[in-house]
Amino acid sequence: MSLLENTLKQIGTLDKESMEKTQARLEGLIKPPGSLGVLEEMALQLSGIYREPMPTIGKKAIIVMGGDHGIVEEGVSIAPMEVTALMMPTFVRGQSGMAVLAKHAGASVTAVDIGVAVPLEVPGVLNRKVKAGTDNLSKGPAMSREEAVKAIEVGIEVATEEIKKGTRVLGTGDMGIGNTTPSSAILAVFAGLPIPDVTGIGTGITEQAVKNKITVIEKALEINKPDKNDPIDVLAKVGGLEIAGIAGIILAAAANRVPVVVDGFISSAGALIAARLAPNSVEFMIGSHCSAEHAHRTMLEVIGLRPMLDMKMRLGEGSGAALTMTIIDAAIKVLHEMATFEEIGIVL
Amino acid sequence: MSLLENTLKQIGTLDKESMEKTQARLEGLIKPPGSLGVLEEMALQLSGIYREPMPTIGKKAIIVMGGDHGIVEEGVSIAPMEVTALMMPTFVRGQSGMAVLAKHAGASVTAVDIGVAVPLEVPGVLNRKVKAGTDNLSKGPAMSREEAVKAIEVGIEVATEEIKKGTRVLGTGDMGIGNTTPSSAILAVFAGLPIPDVTGIGTGITEQAVKNKITVIEKALEINKPDKNDPIDVLAKVGGLEIAGIAGIILAAAANRVPVVVDGFISSAGALIAARLAPNSVEFMIGSHCSAEHAHRTMLEVIGLRPMLDMKMRLGEGSGAALTMTIIDAAIKVLHEMATFEEIGIVL
Repeated sequence: MSLLENTLKQIGTLDKESMEKTQARLEGLIKPPGSLGVLEEMALQLSGIYREPMPTIGKKAIIVMGGDHGIVEEGVSIAPMEVTALMMPTFVRGQSGMAVLAKHAGASVTAVDIGVAVPLEVPGVLNRKVKAGTDNLSKGPAMSREEAVKAIEVGIEVATEEIKKGTRVLGTGDMGIGNTTPSSAILAVFAGLPIPDVTGIGTGITEQAVKNKITVIEKALEINKPDKNDPIDVLAKVGGLEIAGIAGIILAAAANRVPVVVDGFISSAGALIAARLAPNSVEFMIGSHCSAEHAHRTMLEVIGLRPMLDMKMRLGEGSGAALTMTIIDAAIKVLHEMATFEEIGIVL
Repeated sequence: MSLLENTLKQIGTLDKESMEKTQARLEGLIKPPGSLGVLEEMALQLSGIYREPMPTIGKKAIIVMGGDHGIVEEGVSIAPMEVTALMMPTFVRGQSGMAVLAKHAGASVTAVDIGVAVPLEVPGVLNRKVKAGTDNLSKGPAMSREEAVKAIEVGIEVATEEIKKGTRVLGTGDMGIGNTTPSSAILAVFAGLPIPDVTGIGTGITEQAVKNKITVIEKALEINKPDKNDPIDVLAKVGGLEIAGIAGIILAAAANRVPVVVDGFISSAGALIAARLAPNSVEFMIGSHCSAEHAHRTMLEVIGLRPMLDMKMRLGEGSGAALTMTIIDAAIKVLHEMATFEEIGIVL
C-alpha cells in the first residue's frame, strides 16, 4: 500500500468520550454556559483529537511549503517568479511576517522546497523538490498524477517527522508566486462556482489583470477538464506542488491525531483537497483567519471550517496560522486555569 | 473646571508625522503592501497615539468595573444579582475567564467596585462605589446626573493611576448582572434603532424573556425620555455605573495618549458614551471582538470600531480585550522584527 493510501486509512474521528468529560468541565467553569464561544469549541476539539479530557499543548510548528507556478508567464501576479526563491531563506531566518508571528506564538518553522523553479541551497530549508515548478495550467496539466501523489507524500513525510519530534500542533503555510490562481481553480471545480466568483486580487493585481486571471482559469478548466470526483486529478491538472504538500501535512496530522491550523486561501485549497480525499480529516483542522482574498470565506464554508480572525490579512506563508496558535494556547489555559462554580461557592 | 471637563479638553488627535514614518517602514517590509491588514493598521495607530514611529509596548492592564442594576427585578437576566459580588474576587485571584486570558496576554487586572449592590470587602478590589446599584430604569432614571458624572470620573481616576504606574495599553471590562439591558437602551437612543433590533439574549435568556426585555427597554425610554444630544443625560437615565466607569477609562486613555482596547457589548456602550462626549476619543480605541450578543456589530459600526476577533464570545469582563492584547504585541513585533526588501536584496 502506498504512503498516501496508508495515511488515508489511519484517519479516525474525534473521541466522544473525552469530549464529554471536557464538556462537563467547561460547564462547571464560572461563566454562562458556552459564553467563551470558540475557545470552548477548540478545547473540546483538542480533547477529541488527543483523546485527553484535559489536553495540554507542547511543541508547535509551522511547515511552509514553497513551489513555483508555470502559470506566472500569463501575467497573473504582480511579483516575478524569482521572489519565491528569495523568500524561502527569510522563513528560517526569522525575517518574514510568518516567521515573526511564529516566534511570537512559540512555534518553530520548517521550510520545504517542494517545487521552487530554481535550485535552492539554503541551510535550514529542506530540499524535497518534486519538480522545478508546475507547468502552465492554461495549456495543459500543471503536473502529472504521479508528481501530485509524490508531492502529497512529501507533505506527509515532513509532517510525520515533525510529529515524531514531539510537535503537538501543526500549522500550514505556503510560498509560491502565482498560487492564488490554482487555488481559485480548485475551489471552482469542487464548488461548481462561476470563475469570477472565486477569483481575487492575490497580492494586489489591477482590475484588468483580474479579468485576465479569470480567462486563464477558464482556459485551464476547459483544456484540462479536471474530474471533481477525483481529487488527485484536480490537484494534478490545476493545482500546485505546495498545495499538494499542504494537503499532505493535513492528512498526516489527521492520521497521527494532531490538530492542524489551516492558514489562508492557498492553505485552504490544500485543505479542500485533503477534505475530498478524507472527509474526516476536517475534524482535525482548525480554521484560522478569513483572508482579504475574495472567496476565502466561501472556500472555508465549502470545507466546513470557521475562521476566528478577521484581520484583512493576505500574506500567506502561514501568518494567520501562527497568529491563531496564540489563541489555541488561550483555549487550553481557560480549560485548566479557570475556577469552577463549586470552587467559589456558587450553587447552580 | 471639573475633572471630566478637563479630561475632555486634553483629548487630541493621532500624530500624522509619526504615522508617515511608520507607513514608510511598513512599505519596506518583505510582504505585498498592506498584506498584514489590521496588524499594519494597529502599528500605525499606536505610532500616532504614542507619537513614536517605532512604538514599543510595556505594561498592559485590564480595568474591570463592577456595578449592579435595579432593572434586574424585571427579570431581564438568568443570573441573580448576587453573582456580581461573587464574581468580583475572581478577577483579582486569576480565576475568571478574563483573568486567565489577561495572564495569557501578560496584562495585570484591576477590579473596581463602582456600584455593586452589597458591601464588598475583598483585598485587591478597589472600593470606589458611587451608588449601591442603579435604580430600576423602567420606572425612572437609573441614577442622577451627578452620580453619572461621578462614576465617569472614577473611571478617569483609576485609569490615570494605572497610566501613572507605567501602563502603556489599557483594556476595559465589565461585571454587572443585567447590564446588556442598559447597553441596548444606550444603543437604541444614539442610533435611533427600533428596540427589537438592539436587544439580545445576554447571558442566555429565553425568547419569551427577550420579549419582556424589549418591553422593559421601551418603557425605560418612554418614561425617561433621554436626550440623545446630551450623552450624560442618556447615561444617567438608562445607563449603568460600570458603563460610566468604562467611558471614563476610555476618556482618560485618550487624554493621556494611551491606546484602550474596547471589550464586548457593555464596554462598547461605554465607548459609545465616550465617543459622543469626545468624538476624537475613537482614534485612541482599539476594537477587539465581535461578541455573540445581537447588535454588537451594529454598536461597533455606530462607534466606528472594527472587531478583529470573531469567536462567538459573550462573557464580558474584558475577556475579548485581553485576548486582543496578544495581537497588539504581534503587530508591534511585525513592525520591529520583519526584514526589509533592502536587507534581503530585493530591489523593488
